[in-house]
Order: sequence, then structure tokens, then C-alpha cells
Amino acid sequence: MLHVVIMAGGSGTRFWPESRRERPKQFLKLAGERSLLQGTFDRCLPLVAPEQVWVVTNAVQAGQTRQQLPEIPAGNVVIEPCARNTAPCIGLAAVRLLHQDPDAVMAVLPADHVIQPPEVFRGALESASELVAADGSRLVLFGVPPNHPATGFGYIERGEAVADSKNAWQVASFREKPDRKTAEEYVRSGRFYWNCGIFVWRADRILKAIQAHEPEMHDRLQQLASVVGTADWEASLSEQFPQMNSISIDYAVLEREAGICVLEAAYQWDDVGSWHAMPRLIGADDDGNTVIGRHRGIDTKDCIVRTTGDHLVATLGLEGCIVVHTADATLVARTDDENAIKKLVELIRDEGDERFL
Amino acid sequence: MLHVVIMAGGSGTRFWPESRRERPKQFLKLAGERSLLQGTFDRCLPLVAPEQVWVVTNAVQAGQTRQQLPEIPAGNVVIEPCARNTAPCIGLAAVRLLHQDPDAVMAVLPADHVIQPPEVFRGALESASELVAADGSRLVLFGVPPNHPATGFGYIERGEAVADSKNAWQVASFREKPDRKTAEEYVRSGRFYWNCGIFVWRADRILKAIQAHEPEMHDRLQQLASVVGTADWEASLSEQFPQMNSISIDYAVLEREAGICVLEAAYQWDDVGSWHAMPRLIGADDDGNTVIGRHRGIDTKDCIVRTTGDHLVATLGLEGCIVVHTADATLVARTDDENAIKKLVELIRDEGDERFL
Repeated sequence: MLHVVIMAGGSGTRFWPESRRERPKQFLKLAGERSLLQGTFDRCLPLVAPEQVWVVTNAVQAGQTRQQLPEIPAGNVVIEPCARNTAPCIGLAAVRLLHQDPDAVMAVLPADHVIQPPEVFRGALESASELVAADGSRLVLFGVPPNHPATGFGYIERGEAVADSKNAWQVASFREKPDRKTAEEYVRSGRFYWNCGIFVWRADRILKAIQAHEPEMHDRLQQLASVVGTADWEASLSEQFPQMNSISIDYAVLEREAGICVLEAAYQWDDVGSWHAMPRLIGADDDGNTVIGRHRGIDTKDCIVRTTGDHLVATLGLEGCIVVHTADATLVARTDDENAIKKLVELIRDEGDERFL
Repeated sequence: MLHVVIMAGGSGTRFWPESRRERPKQFLKLAGERSLLQGTFDRCLPLVAPEQVWVVTNAVQAGQTRQQLPEIPAGNVVIEPCARNTAPCIGLAAVRLLHQDPDAVMAVLPADHVIQPPEVFRGALESASELVAADGSRLVLFGVPPNHPATGFGYIERGEAVADSKNAWQVASFREKPDRKTAEEYVRSGRFYWNCGIFVWRADRILKAIQAHEPEMHDRLQQLASVVGTADWEASLSEQFPQMNSISIDYAVLEREAGICVLEAAYQWDDVGSWHAMPRLIGADDDGNTVIGRHRGIDTKDCIVRTTGDHLVATLGLEGCIVVHTADATLVARTDDENAIKKLVELIRDEGDERFL
């Protein structure tokens, strides 16, 4: 049966002051009435029942995760004792799924991306399930056809077509974030996809791959598998999980494994990396301004303004700025450097202003 | 006896969002623990007793005026039924003063300027009183020696020295806001002063001057004089005052009258015309930033940041901006045009956002 595993343990300082330690990006309502996490959940229905949706998160965010997704069983919220990157996270989810469903197929989704339209996404999910049903050894990645030469994403190069599919290919290579010129070549070639971090595979298959490439991690996962559903689970998790190698599934498995498929997933995809994504998500007005909330401006161009409650943000002679007002903190930034906000948050932490983090 | 008349009826949209219709500039604590109005009052003590301090204001601001200046008798807060510029305002004050003190000398002060140090100001006030005591026909203006070629102020050109004083001169001419080159000549010449809008004269003398140049206004003031202290005062004021010519004392009297003196007043003076005045008033840090309240910044230069309560304003890559946070509205402006904020307030009014005015 197809299960969805949503990875939702991010910190998301790039959306400060809206995002905080206890309110990371996936909980924010950036592009509508539903948060990114809720949007990720909604997008899977009705293809997957709420009982087949799992969320892996951390202890701090578990409460809010359950609050935002009351539809899923409380036990489907899996809590990592600490952050160990995606390989241990996915291994942990696989162990939990197999305990309930030995034939589990898992679709692994990031919690904080925006995908449109949902029908196309569900279509891709169905195609991937069929690929895995036809051959249980397959590891399927979703590849988004690039619509511009982005330098901030990883790319997947496709090779030979998969025989029983008209939109799946063997993966020829993974390419890290390219420079501009290389990205343009990728787009022109028609053979490259954006790696959007969505995977579909059988739970037992990914555990076998982990066994092959990260045997120690696999041993620890087997320890956990032996106590799922028992009183020893918590203690074993606290002991085993922190000792696992902190490594991404990409490095641990995908780049080392042969026979990985990429499925062309022709939806609009945005990783919502920073405030700069807002114009893409909700559009801009004639002056290039993207506004959420109450705003008045004169001589204001290419700005992103977000304000909460009834608070008014008024701007004058402002160009290319981000203004984000929250109840206790306001950000005013003029920057093309998406990492700069991270530095600002670090400064605030270093100055001891804990309550703003 | 010397009385102080503080003119305090301004609207002060240039300090929006800190200033509002019911909280104009003079009520703001821009440069310390005391508001500009309180600072104006403090500066006169102990030379003048609180009982000799009068404030002319409007009905909306009367309550807050009394609240900010509990030391002065409630009856010393004179309420204009409408705004009619400074000539009727000063005439009204003169009528009230003469009822109590036929020999009243009045020092007329704007409520919303900053003057340092107070001792020098009081010294000038004493010198002016002596000039008027020696010759009751004198109309004395304070002239501030310019320390830079400001183009935003009116200038007073001095003529012949006043015989019995070493720092007073006859006024040779009034000059409107000059262009840069002319202002530089004024400063070089040593014969020009900034007109800081402070006047000292006998109350009966200024009424005579109004009689000579604005006879109808004088008739109406005489009507008021005949009912001061009676039950008819309010009704008469409501009838007469709105019909008075709306004109400044400068145009109505000073530019038409001979024998006006300018007293050199060698204090630091700032008319606090806009947020741009803040660095002059409270200084800037090494990056040129002037900060009141809680602020963290990276790559932030020549900015003015004001925030209230515990609210944090964080800035990134910002240069030459004004950021003012208040409980219900935040301004972010990058402008050299001090009038622009006025336009923004007009826009907010036109859009019907009454509660932010």
C-alpha cells in the first residue's frame, strides 16, 4: 500500500521574523489559508488516506504538527530524538511502516515546498507507485522539468528510458548546484530535471540500500525494528538514533546505487527558500510589489511586504526591499543574498535576544 | 510682568506614524524623557513661574496639554475654536493676559522646537524683557546665528545696533527661505540670523500693532476683551475667532511695522521639522545610525530607527532609511523629501484608513 512520509523537522531561519525555532517554515501560511505542511498533506488526498500519512519531526514541533494535522493518527507523528539528516529519518520511517505494512511503498515528501496543481502531483505519485509495483527494486525520484536556468537547485540527468513507462528514465548522473552557464546548457539539452527531493520506493527496498551502503546505520535500524510497538521503543530510539551517521539519503544511497529512475513530474514546484519566493507564489502588482496584509506605499517598487493582524506598513521611496512585520519583531531588508537573514538571526542570538529566535 | 505664551496647536503629520491628529509633534518624547511641549515649559523655569505660563491650543489637544503640564493653572490653557494662524492666536493670548496683568510682557514660543542649553535661552529671555522694559514700544525677535547655510528657514537681516544693548539690532529686512548660494552669503556676512519664531513684547503693544495693520481683527479682539472672565466668553470666542483673518504674525505685523529689534540668541536651536532632525538631536553611531529603541542591524548605514515598547526592528543592507515602528503602524521610508511623509498621510486619509491618522 502507498504511504506518504512527510519530512518536517526544519528550522527555517530564512523566514525570520515570521519563522521562529518553534514555528518553522512548514507551519507558516505563506501562500494561502493553509500552512505549507497542511498544503503538503492536502495535496496527497484523496489518493492516500489520512491513516497512510506519516510525519517525521522533532519533539519541539510535534505538538504543533498534530495540531495542524488533526486528521492523521497521533501515532503517525514520528519523533526524532535529534536531527540526523535525511538518511536516518527515512530509515526510521521505513522501520515504522514495515511494522504495520510489510508491503509498504513510501513516498517521501519535504513539508515545506509548494506544488501546483495538486492533480498533476497526484498523477506523478500514481505513476511512481505503478513503477514500483511493477518492479519492487526500483528507487524512483521525481524530476521537475526546469523552466529557467536555476543555480540554486541540484539537477538529475536522465539516461535510458524505462521500458514500461513513457515518462521515466534511468538516472545517468546527479549534478550539484551548477553555475549559470552550465544551468543554461542543462535547460537547453532537455535531459535534465530539478531534483525536488521527492522519492518513491518500497520501505524494505530502501532499507536494503541502506544496508548495502551504510551497514552500521542499518544495524541500528534493525535494533529499532525489533522493538517497534513495544515499551522499549523510546529508550532504544534515544540510544540508537543519535549514533547514526548524519548524512543525506542522496549521499548515503542515491549517488551510490545503480538502477535509480527519474520520473518526469510536470508540476509547478517551488522550494520556498526565502521571502524572495513570495512574488512567484502569489504574484506581484503593477509596481512589482508583493503584499500580504495592510500596506500603503508611495514610490514603492519591487518590494515584498508582509504584515500581520491589522498593523499598517507604509512605505515611501522604497525599492527592492523586504518588510515583514510580526507582533514582536519587524524585519526591513534590502538584499539579494538569501543567506543574509540567517546571519541576522545569528546576530540576534549572539546578542542574547533569545525571545526573538 | 513676564508671561510665556506657548503656541501649541500643530498637527505634525511629518512625524507620522508617531504623530497623529490627537498626538501631534509637541506631545512626542523625541529627544528624552520629556515631550517637546514639556521641554519648552521646563526651559522657562525658574525665570517664569508656572502661573505665568500660558498655552494656546485647540479643543482636541487641550486635555493632553493639561495632562502633560499639570503645573500650570487649567485656565492658562487657552482654546482656539479653530486654527487661524499665529496673528489671531497671539492677539487672543494678549487679550487674556491683559485682563490679568495690564503691564503684561509676553514671550511667544513655539511648542515643538528644541533649544539647548536652557540657561542661554533664559539669558536671552531676560535680555529681551529688559529691552522691552526700557522701551515699551519695542517688538523683539530672537535671532539665532546660523551655523550652516540652511535653506529651510527664514532669515532676519540686522541693521543699526540698539543703543542700550550690546546684542540687539534694528531689523533691516526679513528674508524668506533662500537658495543655497544666497544662504551661504548670509552666513558669511555675519549680519543674518535664523528667524526661530520667538517674540517678546508688551501685550498692549502687539494689540496696537494689530490695530494698525489688521483693524478688523483688532475690533474682534476688542469684542473678546470686553467679555473676558464673563459667561459670554465662550459664545463670543466662537463667534469672533473664526471670522478673523487667518494670517501669520509675521505677515500681519512684523513685515509691516518699523522699529522691530532682533536679539542675538546664541543657543543651539532645532525646529525638529521631521525625522531627519533625530541625528542632530541625539547623535548617530559610527555607522551613521540614529536609534531609539531595540534594533539589530547588519550592513545598515545612515538610518534612523525608532521602535516602541519591546518591539525589535532588525535591518539588513539598508542605507539612508527611516524606520519607525508604533503599536499599530510602521513607516519605512527612503527619502530626502521631508514633505513626502505628509503625502503618505494624505494617501492613508484618502484611502479611508481614519484610525491611522
